Amino acid sequence: MKQMIVIRSDLNMGVGKTAVQVAHASMKSLLENIDHPAIKEWLAGPFTKIAVTVDSEEALHDVMNNAKEAGIIVADIIDAGRTEFNGVPTLTCAAIGPATHEELSPITGHLKLR
Amino acid sequence: MKQMIVIRSDLNMGVGKTAVQVAHASMKSLLENIDHPAIKEWLAGPFTKIAVTVDSEEALHDVMNNAKEAGIIVADIIDAGRTEFNGVPTLTCAAIGPATHEELSPITGHLKLR
Repeated sequence: MKQMIVIRSDLNMGVGKTAVQVAHASMKSLLENIDHPAIKEWLAGPFTKIAVTVDSEEALHDVMNNAKEAGIIVADIIDAGRTEFNGVPTLTCAAIGPATHEELSPITGHLKLR
Repeated sequence: MKQMIVIRSDLNMGVGKTAVQVAHASMKSLLENIDHPAIKEWLAGPFTKIAVTVDSEEALHDVMNNAKEAGIIVADIIDAGRTEFNGVPTLTCAAIGPATHEELSPITGHLKLR
């Protein structure tokens, strides 16, 4: 079981900003699905997380839609834009899974490691 | 309420590695303290997280010890070293809090933003 966290590289977020967005996404997936069997199985292991990137908002929406159609947990983060993005709420990243390698491979297998 | 995540800059981790470590720390703090009043209060708001750095393992231990002495939640992450650090288990970061600005200021207020 692993969770992929898909980050928009086109926003050019700094390391700290990126890290916090990724942590938000992972935590949201957990809190929204605390009784989901996939979450329970994931937490019983080393709760592997892998950060990958897409280069546009559209590409992130595509990944999220594909995951939802496959019945995989999706948790997206829309930053309020208070410290970056000129006050415009902005989709920064999404957690996909936890799910098995076989489930995730067709959804996120083509994405570049961050 | 906010959570500070203190990252070791001396390890020179990449962005993806850093993000995953930060997410681990935040999730660990949540899972180990799910019924703690500070966690409940934090989750009721925008669960603010702020990434900061220290430049050594010793400095991170100092921050963690100061937080523990002040009764603040601490969740440290020791990476198994499978993908970096030549197989040596390595303390990479720690979540401090959630707690109030007043509680955190003497513990982490001097640290550089990541």
